[in-house]
Parts: sequence; structure tokens; C-alpha cells
Amino acid sequence: MKRALGTCYYPEHWPRELWAKDAQRMVKAGLTWVRIGEFAWKRVEPRPEMFDWEWLDEAIDVLGRAGLSVVLGTPTATPPRWMLDRHPDMLAVDAEGRQRGFGSRRHYCFSHDGYLDECRRIVTLFADRYGRSPHVAAWQTDNEYGCHDTVISYSSAASKAFRRWLRERYGTIESLNYAWGNVFWSMEYDSFDQIDLPILTVTEPNPAHSLAFRRFSSEQVARFNRAQVEIIRARSDAPISHNYMGRETAFDHFEVGRDLDIVTWDSYPLGFLEDRAGVTVATQRRYSRQGDPDFQAFHHDLYRSAGRGRWWVMEQQPGPVNWAPHNPAPLPGMVRLWTWEAFAHGAEAVCYFRWRQLPFAQEQLHSGLQRADLVDAPAMAEAEQVARELADAPDVAEAQAPVALIFDYDASWAWEIQPHGAELSYFDLVLDHYRALRRAGLSVDILPPTGDFDGYRMILAPGLMHMSDELKARLMACGAEVLIGPRAAARNEDFAILRPLPPAISGLDVLVSRVESLRPELTRSVSGGGSIWGYSEDLEGAAEVVLATTEGAPVAMRTGSVTYMGGWGDEELLDRLVSDLAERVGQGTRRLPEGVRVRETGTERFWFNHTDQPVNTEAGPIPPAGVLREPLG
Amino acid sequence: MKRALGTCYYPEHWPRELWAKDAQRMVKAGLTWVRIGEFAWKRVEPRPEMFDWEWLDEAIDVLGRAGLSVVLGTPTATPPRWMLDRHPDMLAVDAEGRQRGFGSRRHYCFSHDGYLDECRRIVTLFADRYGRSPHVAAWQTDNEYGCHDTVISYSSAASKAFRRWLRERYGTIESLNYAWGNVFWSMEYDSFDQIDLPILTVTEPNPAHSLAFRRFSSEQVARFNRAQVEIIRARSDAPISHNYMGRETAFDHFEVGRDLDIVTWDSYPLGFLEDRAGVTVATQRRYSRQGDPDFQAFHHDLYRSAGRGRWWVMEQQPGPVNWAPHNPAPLPGMVRLWTWEAFAHGAEAVCYFRWRQLPFAQEQLHSGLQRADLVDAPAMAEAEQVARELADAPDVAEAQAPVALIFDYDASWAWEIQPHGAELSYFDLVLDHYRALRRAGLSVDILPPTGDFDGYRMILAPGLMHMSDELKARLMACGAEVLIGPRAAARNEDFAILRPLPPAISGLDVLVSRVESLRPELTRSVSGGGSIWGYSEDLEGAAEVVLATTEGAPVAMRTGSVTYMGGWGDEELLDRLVSDLAERVGQGTRRLPEGVRVRETGTERFWFNHTDQPVNTEAGPIPPAGVLREPLG
Amino acid sequence: MKRALGTCYYPEHWPRELWAKDAQRMVKAGLTWVRIGEFAWKRVEPRPEMFDWEWLDEAIDVLGRAGLSVVLGTPTATPPRWMLDRHPDMLAVDAEGRQRGFGSRRHYCFSHDGYLDECRRIVTLFADRYGRSPHVAAWQTDNEYGCHDTVISYSSAASKAFRRWLRERYGTIESLNYAWGNVFWSMEYDSFDQIDLPILTVTEPNPAHSLAFRRFSSEQVARFNRAQVEIIRARSDAPISHNYMGRETAFDHFEVGRDLDIVTWDSYPLGFLEDRAGVTVATQRRYSRQGDPDFQAFHHDLYRSAGRGRWWVMEQQPGPVNWAPHNPAPLPGMVRLWTWEAFAHGAEAVCYFRWRQLPFAQEQLHSGLQRADLVDAPAMAEAEQVARELADAPDVAEAQAPVALIFDYDASWAWEIQPHGAELSYFDLVLDHYRALRRAGLSVDILPPTGDFDGYRMILAPGLMHMSDELKARLMACGAEVLIGPRAAARNEDFAILRPLPPAISGLDVLVSRVESLRPELTRSVSGGGSIWGYSEDLEGAAEVVLATTEGAPVAMRTGSVTYMGGWGDEELLDRLVSDLAERVGQGTRRLPEGVRVRETGTERFWFNHTDQPVNTEAGPIPPAGVLREPLG
Repeated sequence: MKRALGTCYYPEHWPRELWAKDAQRMVKAGLTWVRIGEFAWKRVEPRPEMFDWEWLDEAIDVLGRAGLSVVLGTPTATPPRWMLDRHPDMLAVDAEGRQRGFGSRRHYCFSHDGYLDECRRIVTLFADRYGRSPHVAAWQTDNEYGCHDTVISYSSAASKAFRRWLRERYGTIESLNYAWGNVFWSMEYDSFDQIDLPILTVTEPNPAHSLAFRRFSSEQVARFNRAQVEIIRARSDAPISHNYMGRETAFDHFEVGRDLDIVTWDSYPLGFLEDRAGVTVATQRRYSRQGDPDFQAFHHDLYRSAGRGRWWVMEQQPGPVNWAPHNPAPLPGMVRLWTWEAFAHGAEAVCYFRWRQLPFAQEQLHSGLQRADLVDAPAMAEAEQVARELADAPDVAEAQAPVALIFDYDASWAWEIQPHGAELSYFDLVLDHYRALRRAGLSVDILPPTGDFDGYRMILAPGLMHMSDELKARLMACGAEVLIGPRAAARNEDFAILRPLPPAISGLDVLVSRVESLRPELTRSVSGGGSIWGYSEDLEGAAEVVLATTEGAPVAMRTGSVTYMGGWGDEELLDRLVSDLAERVGQGTRRLPEGVRVRETGTERFWFNHTDQPVNTEAGPIPPAGVLREPLG
Repeated sequence: MKRALGTCYYPEHWPRELWAKDAQRMVKAGLTWVRIGEFAWKRVEPRPEMFDWEWLDEAIDVLGRAGLSVVLGTPTATPPRWMLDRHPDMLAVDAEGRQRGFGSRRHYCFSHDGYLDECRRIVTLFADRYGRSPHVAAWQTDNEYGCHDTVISYSSAASKAFRRWLRERYGTIESLNYAWGNVFWSMEYDSFDQIDLPILTVTEPNPAHSLAFRRFSSEQVARFNRAQVEIIRARSDAPISHNYMGRETAFDHFEVGRDLDIVTWDSYPLGFLEDRAGVTVATQRRYSRQGDPDFQAFHHDLYRSAGRGRWWVMEQQPGPVNWAPHNPAPLPGMVRLWTWEAFAHGAEAVCYFRWRQLPFAQEQLHSGLQRADLVDAPAMAEAEQVARELADAPDVAEAQAPVALIFDYDASWAWEIQPHGAELSYFDLVLDHYRALRRAGLSVDILPPTGDFDGYRMILAPGLMHMSDELKARLMACGAEVLIGPRAAARNEDFAILRPLPPAISGLDVLVSRVESLRPELTRSVSGGGSIWGYSEDLEGAAEVVLATTEGAPVAMRTGSVTYMGGWGDEELLDRLVSDLAERVGQGTRRLPEGVRVRETGTERFWFNHTDQPVNTEAGPIPPAGVLREPLG
Repeated sequence: MKRALGTCYYPEHWPRELWAKDAQRMVKAGLTWVRIGEFAWKRVEPRPEMFDWEWLDEAIDVLGRAGLSVVLGTPTATPPRWMLDRHPDMLAVDAEGRQRGFGSRRHYCFSHDGYLDECRRIVTLFADRYGRSPHVAAWQTDNEYGCHDTVISYSSAASKAFRRWLRERYGTIESLNYAWGNVFWSMEYDSFDQIDLPILTVTEPNPAHSLAFRRFSSEQVARFNRAQVEIIRARSDAPISHNYMGRETAFDHFEVGRDLDIVTWDSYPLGFLEDRAGVTVATQRRYSRQGDPDFQAFHHDLYRSAGRGRWWVMEQQPGPVNWAPHNPAPLPGMVRLWTWEAFAHGAEAVCYFRWRQLPFAQEQLHSGLQRADLVDAPAMAEAEQVARELADAPDVAEAQAPVALIFDYDASWAWEIQPHGAELSYFDLVLDHYRALRRAGLSVDILPPTGDFDGYRMILAPGLMHMSDELKARLMACGAEVLIGPRAAARNEDFAILRPLPPAISGLDVLVSRVESLRPELTRSVSGGGSIWGYSEDLEGAAEVVLATTEGAPVAMRTGSVTYMGGWGDEELLDRLVSDLAERVGQGTRRLPEGVRVRETGTERFWFNHTDQPVNTEAGPIPPAGVLREPLG
């Protein structure tokens, strides 16, 4: 397979006479994919059930005949204003109890059946019309589920659906009361109809109640997406995708991914740096024009897994964006670096968002490959360079990584509901482990808890607050060096604490007798170097103590190839752990210079210099924002 | 009297077969009290007016027959879900105008008469059934009034009740308009029915309006509590208590206390440290595992006063809790230290909350004396040690302290309504004075403004924004060295400024001619050492100037034994003031090492080392978290 | 003309027997103006359409006969409580969707026609009764439009009025859709009735939508004010004023000013320092008792322009106020300094707010010239000193300044809607330029974009996001040295980006090819000294590069006398720019000592020492808080 480039284009925003010219320029630049349509409902259906397909027919035709393959988006992220007259209660309600209004995007509640029917209707029309088009080579459902905190809604539609969901899950109200421990604080219900959404309670609601609502909310997204996928699949052979955002954990991307053919995501390295990479201000300063060196790679690996190997970057930042606290321009070379990094991690395609900066409305300060005056922006040359390099170089050979890191959306919800310490989040915990692996030069596959462990030398599974018995058994038996904890199996599936105490894993004689959270600066020093910070557990049991505090309290314990880690390690401690595990399996590691990262494919080692200075590596010198391809022995 | 230990237990949370075993373990540990029942409404009355008493009968019987004395809580803090069907408008409304929902606890408005009637009904049934039980040796009304900001409600029930309250207080609307100064900004009302609660005004409401609402809200709590007390008292001879929280000032604990036989409070030293002790981050770090050295003692002394001598710790933290920003484990020894500190301050009993960590629902990360797997937690051994020590040592002999410190809830409301400077709170002002007294090794009694001043050598009364004429006269005549100010008598009872200007105390020729608030770092240096920070007054008058700024402006002035302090002194200045006053009455003081505190009883001096290092004191060395009992000459 | 002093007085707050005595004291102090009445609606109309004029008649008579000229305020800022019974929906709705209540002031929505009619009614009665009074020498409409964020309301009255306004502005819905670019995100409307106010959208609304709403909201204020002016003007020859606040930019003060005869403002230097002067904490500390050295002068110059030369300080801070985060007392001499500074900038009158500290209600901690006990406060002596100095010295001779600085409310709204970087505001940008001019010793006139440029040597117009073609042409042709940018002409009148790219000024070959925002500390160094911070543009074009980064990227470009500045200069860079421009026109500058400022009139140079230390200047030594008048050659 040849990796490909593309872009996101909105013919409805531009004069019709530009379309052909734009298409030619795209082709000339070396782009082969063009995504269109995902915000165009109003232009296709200007009045309810009155349609104007002509422009879209022509746009697809013009683009296709120029040689481009079209990704057609269903337009359900932006229902027209008239939709609200048909379904006045379709809007979501936020955690303050306020209905959110029309005037931007994503203004719908996933649980509203009336709106879902409207989506089925419009998607059917799209798929009927374009499902066999020679130019429509892929589909996208909706756009960026969850963006702008839109997964969770406290609407009456959600309330009714949640009660149904609970009834299906628990059968009887007695069963629910027991599972949730509602005897505490006299919270027992007499019927499912008494259960409200967990909003505006006097103090925090029962965590079991909250977790159920988070699971329900996630499933509503999957249900919504599946409805579209089924319609398209019946009418088209083109693969179906959805584009995820960065650090969007409010729904289970693996579950939605199982219904898709390709998973894509929207990579905005500079936009993410300040508002979701979770890095220190010093790092924000150092990488202001480059983005965090691990954050994008983490998502590449996560979404490769969610797409079962097939994944794209559907929106790649090409210059300053409009929505972050600060919006600098990338260092020259970074657009190329980001693109190659995606390919090195296995992306089939990287599409730049957007083709051209739009002079009006909300995203008018979002860069494109072209400026608003139709002149090429600086990113164009970097895209063209990648296109040439793609043509000239051998294809990226995909390969299984030696290390698997498990990511579990359910654990993320559980940590959010009960972080125990103010600074603690599951996402950051997993990302900290990912960073440590990357600092050691290791390539990583990210797996769901249900993933296939075959062939991995090391499996890291930090923070899995609930673990099924089957997962425990698989980890114990898989043969890889396994790292679990902190908080491993700390709760049963209804957020209760197991007895015997966690982790309660047969064959691993470790018991967490007490947990505490700490002010970030009050760390516990570990013998030999590094510290525990933020979250710390007291461990008991007969397993071997492999790490202990300087006072002698166990920090990590091991039986066979399974290590339990009783706290949140800092950088030095995680580096030690990774080295130790790698050494035990004979996996070579390296200490990379600050800001340099590698990714191994089947035949090459890609080196990326995320800094603004030249660096010397064992594979040779790399200029600032540079990429180096090293053939593997 | 023998001091006693106890615990808080929830039989409804555990299998019936555990009850007897738990009771035996409690007795074996040396506990004699067990509190039960306060969240069990739903289990006692599963459906409206359908009851299940059997389990509670048995629980009381099992515990009692094991030798334990039961404190029975009325279950009104957690009305069952069906209660909302009977009284849909019983929920409180918050300052944003949002009705708060079911799903946690304290979901009721104190002003709702329908709910109050339900409480009367269930309390009558409890008291009828258990009022003469040989095992029920004490009662508790409801639980933690005010916790989770539940005193103030902007419901329509509160609105109606407030109008009635105003009519009773002011008689005519003209009288209210005049007292509040409503002529300002054309706020005069034509009738009481026009007066809304002070919520969501365009800018701040009239402080007189706010203060009236705060007083009303406090009285609604007292009314609610009194209704329960009257019912129980008519049916039982056992003493009646309520358990207060730390730094909960939204209702007048003295007023509620007057209806109780015993006042109890819930002491969570580590939980309080970050979120309400008002200490610097450096102190939070130093005492992360010990709690603030003065915060608990302050409440011991405050609630001893509210209980007119009879007080307990009803909930004593035994390990990490679940609700603070960070939840570390206590230093070994601290549970014992906290317990002994309570006894040294006169507690009749200290009950650990909770008997056993609960594996489900909101407080599943709250430690107990036992772990969730029925194994003893570290605190158990410390409790047992205290039990042995109690048995072996002489009883604590209570004695009046040489110093009285006045605490006035009304003043706290007034400062909250009009702090004048962003950092200023009455609670912190009083606590700063308390800390200075403690640093000097003095034992303190805390009194309400109506307290009996007899026998005190020194009386400190900072920040009393309103002082009745009678209080002024009593302070002038009491013979003790009296310290008042800043803001002493700064307002009349309706929040207006008196003429002549404050403090307007006959016999004290001091007048506050101007007040100002300062950025915290812009202090005013005082000759001889120390500074005024935050709040500063210009003083005039013929009284003797006893402290002045380095520029010569009066800071403290005195006539006879009454000193007026025209600002908020820093640590050094308050230390100087305390030394000076003590010297004037021949009261010995000492300079205690950092983190060491003493408390004198009638026969002993208790020394407490709140640090994690051994210290040497004049009474001998004390280990970290250690307690030393020094017999008094 | 003789400059005059005055005060703000509320006869309704004080016993009638005090009125004459107060009036005599005012006259004796040298005051000639007294403002009354602006909050007195309830006292004049105690019940709907039942009036009590007697007291106001007498108050005006007593004050007038004592020799004072009365400024009579219309009482519409504080409708009585009964007004809400007549117009329950007259209250404004805030950005959270909550109706704000009665109980303070400014509790009305500008768009409510019923309330507007009530205002017309009461103003007609005021004007009929006092329009020809010999004592009423000036009028004030309402009070402090916009104070407490009261310009913007999301009420249903506002919603209806906004739709009407849009229909008038755009004619057809197609025209609006096109102008706003509503094709983006399918936001196109089918009719004006579908357009909601831009509140609680899921993510940000279309900036064109927001800007239209801001313009509409501003015009509603002008409409409201105009209704009062027309009534008064038909019935009185006395000049009509309104008193603006500091840094209140939610409505266009120039537009409202065009309907007034005199513009006044309320100058609270210490109150403003922390909460709106936009200065560093270090500056807040240094000027804690003096206020920012430029903030008041900026408003003097701004409001002199809004009043087309006629302006007053209607409320001058005389001591500590009640409403800032901290409320210190002014340094001795500052009240005199502030007063003279106003006169030096051309004020006709300075009135101290308030005559006497009020002992009750919301502003009881706001100082007056007298204390609440009728004794003179420290400010009285300073006011009296100014009165003597006014009598003894020659009048201030007004003169056009050599420099004009343009301030545009529309630009302020645009920057608020789309700051692009978290710290960026238009007001601060303009103020930074003003500060640089002041540091160079230059006197400044502030102009609206429609102002007359004749006679100015230098014109600074930073940050004008929209510039009409006429404005561009006038600036190019005016002959002065002109500085524009950053963001000059960055948007068309409907918030879209122009093509050719901005600034698109004929005769100035500069094009902004890319914009970025930066973390505040990540500055771009400029060759020769100084930096760009926060906001930075990439410039292209054939114009001369007059400033460039140390890497050689253009920062400022010039053709003829027009300089385009492509970023936000720091202090050093703005000083360089000002020096350079001044040098080009032969305008002398000086480097003033820290905290010293000058203002040149037609015949004098006034020197003001804002520091608490004596300074030596070329005109001689000036004591702390001192004023020096230097005759001009």
C-alpha cells in the first residue's frame, strides 16, 4: 500500500468557478484524497424534505474527474435551524441544567430518537445517491463525536433512555440497589422511574450511579454511529470512517471503532499543547512551535488500535489554529515532521485541514494549505515535499511493536468520577507510561483490555480500575512481562471494592491494604532513584518486593512475570521500571536525546527531532524539526 | 467521669451475621459507645408509612447486649426517594437559582414545613420505640447540619418563611425600610410580600438584607433541630446531641447547642488541613500527615462551650479520608494524639468514624478502624492503646482556662457579607488570635458574646462587628484584660454604622475615623516589631496609645484594662499583644517549639508534639506525634 | 471659563434640618456644583403615579439659595420595587440565562419598551417641574450606563428587538446569511425570527453574530439615553450630561456623547488600580495609594473627546472606597493631584463623590468629604486647597495636543469576541500606546475613528480591526505621521477577512500573510531593542521595512508617513516607535522619571508626581503626590 495525502475541502464555501482550479492545485501538490460534505446539511436540504443535490453532484464530479478520491461526510453534526422547529427538545442539556442552543455545531443530544430518525433519513439519502459513485471512495459519519463536551447530556430524552438502559442492565430495582450500595445514605429506589441523571446533587452522587451514566452515554454515541454505518454499508462498498479528536475520552473509541472500517483522528499538535497534553509550562514553552513530542504519537498508536490497523489523520494542522489559548505558527519543517510521524506509525493517509483558510465565521483564523487570498500558505511546500518523498521512497512496512500498552475508556471514567487526588487522571497516567517507553526508544502498540496479547514481550496496564476475571487470567498467562497498578482491579464492575482486597489476582500474592493521595510535591522516595507522587498504596503479600521506599515500604511487587506497581511513578522511576522490564525480556532500549523520538517499522527506524536545534544521534545528525530514516539491519 | 471511646456503625450495611462479631470486637478494643441509625430512614420506612423495625430492634439489641451504649441518630438527613413524591418542592435552591436534586444526602430545605412534619413523624416513631430502650444511651438529631453548604436555601418555602420572619422582627415595612436604609438606591418596599431573597441581584444586595437572611437561615436550622429535640425529650431521658462539622459557620452553633444536652463534632484533621484550616501551603506541607496543630483544638474549645461543658468528638478521622483535595494517611501516632487532645480539652467521648471502611457508594475510600476485608486497620491499635491508657491513668480534671476568646456567628456572617478586603474572614481572625494564645502556651475557653466572663484573666474579642450595649458594658466592667477590635462594634444590629463612630464604648475614648483594606503584602510596620496587614483603621481619641506604626499612627489604644486594636496583627504582633496582656495580669506564658502545643487541665499539663520529629520540652522529650502528661505542681 | 468644584449629595438620605448646614459647608469649602436626585425615584413617586415633590422642591431650593448650582439626575437607574409589578419582564437576563433580580441597582433591560415608557414618563415630569428652575444648572441622565455589566441582556425583549434590528440592517435573511458566512456549519437561517441571541451555544457562536449583538446592545443604550435627552432638551436650556465609568466599553460612548452637551465620568483611581487598569502586581503595589499614573488621564482625554470638549469628573474618589478587592486610603495630596490633573486635561468641573459617607446600605464604606459623623474627612482640606488655588491662579488654557490616539468601541467588541490570544484586549493595546506617549512627555487627544485629524502631527491608531474605506483614505491623506496595526483593517464590517488580505490600504504596500498569538513570555526580539509579545503578524509587501526581528522578519513597514506595525510592542519597542515618529515630525519628547507625568495646556506645563517620593525634574523638584505648574516659554 502506498501512503497518501489529502485535504478537507468545502465546495459550498467557495464560488463554483474555483472548484476545478482547486482540484487541479490539489492534484498538482500530490494530494489524492479530499473530504467534503460533513457540514453541508442546510445546503443539501434547504427546507425540510426539499433538496438541492445539484451542487454536491457537481462538486463530487469535478473533484473526482480531476483524479481525487472523495471522502464523503454525513452532515449530521450540524442540523439546520429548521430541525429545531421539528424537534424543539433535541438539544443537549449541560451539567448546570441549561439547554444549549443553536448557532454553532454539535447541537443535538445523542439520546433523542426523533433526531436520530432524521439522521437515518438524511444518511439514507446520501448513501442512496452516492453509495455507488466512482468518486466516493470512503465515508465519514458525522464529525468529531464528543468535541465541545457533547457526549454527556442531561436532557429528558437522555433521562428516559438511561432508565431503559438501567432496566435492561439490572433487571430489577433491587438488583440495582444492591449493586450500587444504595443502602448507604438511604438512596435505595423503589422503581427505575425514580432514577434521575446524576446532576446537581447536593454533594457527589454515588460513583456507581455516575459510572453507569458514563457507560450509558458512551453507548449512546456508539448506537448513533452504528445507525449511520448500517445504512451506508447496505448501500456502498467504500470504507466507513469517523474522525476522533485528541484526548477525547467521553466515549469508548474502541467500541465505536468496531463498527468502522477506518478510524481517523484530527491532529492539532500546537492547539493541543496548552489545553490537553497535560505538560508543564516549561514544556509548553520549549515546544510552543512543535507540539508535545509524544502526544500525537500516542494517539496514532491508540487509533491504529481502534481501527484494527486501518487509520488516518483526517485533519492535520498546517499552521496556526484559532481555538487554543495561544496560536503560534509551527516551526518550519514541523508540518512535514508531523506527516511523516503519522506514516511511520502506520497511517494510510494524512489529510490537511483545511485546504484554504476561510475568511468568515468561527474558524476564520484557522490556517489552510492556502491563504484566504488563494495564495499558497507555508504548509503547502511541506506537503508537496512529503508527496515527493512518498513517491520516491519505499513504503512504510508495518510491524507489531515489542510493547503493548493498555488503554481502557472505562478506567478513564472511573478515575474521573473518583480521582482521589486533585491532580490525578487516568489519561495522564497512561501517557506517562507511554512517554517512558518512548524515552527508551521503544515502539508501542496500544490495546484495549480485550486486545490480543500474542507476540508482545512487555505489556503495561497501569490504572485499570476494573479488571474482569478473564483479563486477570490472560495477563497472568500471556508470558510477557506485565506491569499493572496502581489501582489495578480496585473496583468491581459496579464500582465497589472487591473482597479479598484488590487486586485479588490469583497467582499474584499482593494486596492493597490502604490507599492515599498526596500533594504533588510531597513525593515518597524510592530506593535506587525516583519517587512515587500523587497516588500511593500500601502493599502486603508474599510476592517479591522489587521496589521499596527509602523507608522500606514496598512500592512494586512481583510474582513471575507480573509486576504490581503500588503508586504513580515519576519520570525517573518509570524509566527504571521500563529498563528493568525490557532487560528481563532482552529487549534493547536506548536513551534518546531530549525531544528526539524514534519509531521502528518492519524495515526502518524513523528518527524525529522535535526540537528547534540540530541534534546528533547514533543514526546521524538531524536538523531542527528534521526526520531521518534509518534502514534496519 | 471516665472518658470513653466509641465508633460509628451501620448495621444496615453489613450482613446480619456480622453484627455480634463486630460488637464483640468493639468491646474488646475498649470501645463503649456506638452510634447508629442516622442514614437509615429508607430501611426503617421502605414505603411511606410502611415500617420495618425488626432489623433495627435486633441491631440495638445485639450491640447493647454486647455491652455497648448506643447513640441513636434520627434519620432526617437522608429522606428516601419516595419523600420527593410527597413533597416535590422540599429540595433546596442554591445561590445560582438551581434546585438541587436527590442522589446524595442533605437534600432538603430547612424552611419546608411539609418536610419538617415528616421529620416530626419519623422522630416521634423513633422516640416512641427506643426512648426507653436500656441500650439507647444517647440521641443524635439528623447529621452535620450545614454540611455541603446546606443551610442557605433560596427556595420558595424559604422565601415565604423569610417574609414571615421579617414581619415578626420589624413589625412594619416602614420600620424595615428605615433600619436597612432602603432609601439608598430607591430600594424601599411597600409591603413584606415584595421582599425577595437576596439572590442574583445586579450588584451586591443591601448588607442589611443579606444579614437578615443569614440570621433567618440560622434560626431555621435551630427551629428544625428544636422540633426533634422536643419530641425526643418528651419520650426519653437519654441526652440529646447533634454532630457539628469543622469551620461550619452558616448557623449559630451556640443557639442550636442550647437545645441540646451534648454537643459533638466531626474531627478530620487531615481533611480539614487543605480545604478549611486557612493555612499557607508551607504549613500544609509540613503538617500534611498531622493536620493543623490548632484547628482541632479550636473546635474542641468552641464546641465545649456550645455544649455548656458537655461535648464529644462524634467522628474522629482514623486514616485517609475520601473527600479532601489530597488524602494522605496520618503519621503513626496521630490517631492517638488526636484522641488524647480531645480528652485533654474535656471531651467525654471520642468515636472513630467509621467502624469499618465501606466497600461501596460515596465514602468507599474513607478509612475505618477496620478495612473493608474485616481486618484491623492501623488505627485500631492506636485506639486500643488509648483505651488501655484511659483505664490506667487518672481522669482528666476539667478546669476553667485563664483566657476567654469570644466567637460570634453573627460577626462571621457580617464579615462574609462585607469583608472589605478580599482575603479577610472573621473565622481566620479569631483563629489567628487563638493560635497566638496557643503559641504562648495558654489554655483557652471560647465563649459566645453572651458568655459568663467571671474568673477570666484575659478576654480576647476580636472582630465583633456588632456589640450590644450590654456586651460593651460587661466587657468594660469585667475586670479582665480585654482586647477588642478591629471592627469592634462597627455596625449596629441592622448593619448600619453607629454615630458617634465606632466603637462608641462609654469609658473608652477611642474612635475609628477611617478604615482601609490592604493588599496582603503591603503591611504597616509597628514600632517594636510586627505589622498590621490586610485591615487597618485610623484611630482617634484620648485613650493611651499602646502600639503605633513606625510613622507614629496609633495601632492599639487602651483605657484601664480595655485595649482597642485598630488592625489585623500578624503573628509577631499578636504574640506581642498576648505577652503584654498576660504580663499585665501576671499570667505566665511560654514560647513553645514549633508544632508543640500544651493544654492544662485541673491537675496536669498535656504536651502534644504535632511534628514528625522528636522535640525536647521543659517537661521532657516527646517523640514524633507524641503525647506527654505532666502533673501540675 | 473658571474651573469649578462640586460634590454629589443625597438630601433624601439625611434629616431635613441638615440640608442648609450642608449647603453652607459646601459653599464655604469652595464647591459650586451639587449633583442630586439620580437614585430618588421611590421618594418622588412612592406609589405608581402618586407623587411627592415637596421634599425635592425644598432640597433644590435650599441648595440653590445657598449659592450652589444643581445637577439634577433622572432617577431611572433605580426603578422602585412596584415597577416590577407593572413590568415583570423588565429585568435583564445574564449570559447564564438567569434573570437578575431587584435589590440593588440598574435592574432593567435597555430593550424593554414598557420600562422605557416609564422612564419617558418620569423624565417628562422631572423636566416639566425643574426645567426652568433657576437652580438646576445641568442635568444628568440615569447613572453609569453599563456599570455592573448591564449593557448586555439576553431577555426576550432584547431578543425581539435584536431581530427587528437585524431586519433593518440586513433587509433580507439571504443578505444576513451571506454577510455572516452562515454557510459554515449549516447555520443559515430561513427567517429573522429564527435568530436567537448568541447565548449558550455549544461552542462559540459566529463572530459576526456576536458583533451584531454587541452593536445592537450598544445602540439600545444610545436609544434609551436619547429618549431622555429629547424630553429634557424640549423643556430646559441647561446642559445635559451622563456620567460614564472607567474602562466601560460595552457601549459606544462617542455615540451616546453626541446626544449630550457634557460628558462626565467617575474617577476612582485606587478602586480601578487592581480591577481594571490592567497593570502588573508590581505596579499595583507601587501605586497602591496613588492609582495608576496613566489610567485616569487616559479617560480624561477619552471623555473630553466624547463630550466634544466639554467634560467633567462627576465622581472623584476622595478616600477609601468600598468595592475594590482592597480599599486603601490615598496618599496625602493625591486628592488634590487627581483634581488638578483633571483640570489640566480640560475638565470644567470636578465633583467629589460623595459629600458625606453614608452609614447604611451598600456603599457605607465609601468615603466622602465628610465622615458619617459630620466631621470633615481628610479629603476636605485638599478640596479646599484646590478651591483656593483655582481662585488664585490663571485659568487652564485648553489647547489641541500634538498627538491623536484613536479609540474605537467597535474594535474593542471585535477583540473581545476574537482575542486570538488569551491575554489580548484592545483596551490594553490602546492604553499601552497611550502610556508610551505619556512616558515621552507628550500630551494626547483621543479621537473616535470619525474624528477630525486636522492639526495633529502624529496619529496613532492601533488595533482598528475594521476600518472603513473613508478612514483609510483620510489617514493616508492627513499628512500626520500615522501608526496603524496590528490587526488594522483585519475584518470587514461583518467580521469577515477582506480580500486582498489586510490591511488592503491603497498606497500602502503591506499585506498580513499570517497571524499568530504567543504565550506572553515567548517574545520575538526586534533588532535595535524591544520585542513583540502576545500577537504577531507576518508581513509582506514592497513598503519599507522600518523594524525587523533579529532574524530579519519585518515587524513594521512604512510608506510615506504611514507606518504599519505587525505586532504588539512591549514598552521598549513602543518607546522607540514613539520617539521615531516624533523625531520625523520634529516633535520634542522627554524621558520622564518613573511615575512623573506632564500635561501641556495652551500656556503651561503641568507636572504630576504620582510617586510617594520627591523627584527632581527639569522644571524643579516636586514633592510626593505633588503638582507643579510650569509656564510655557
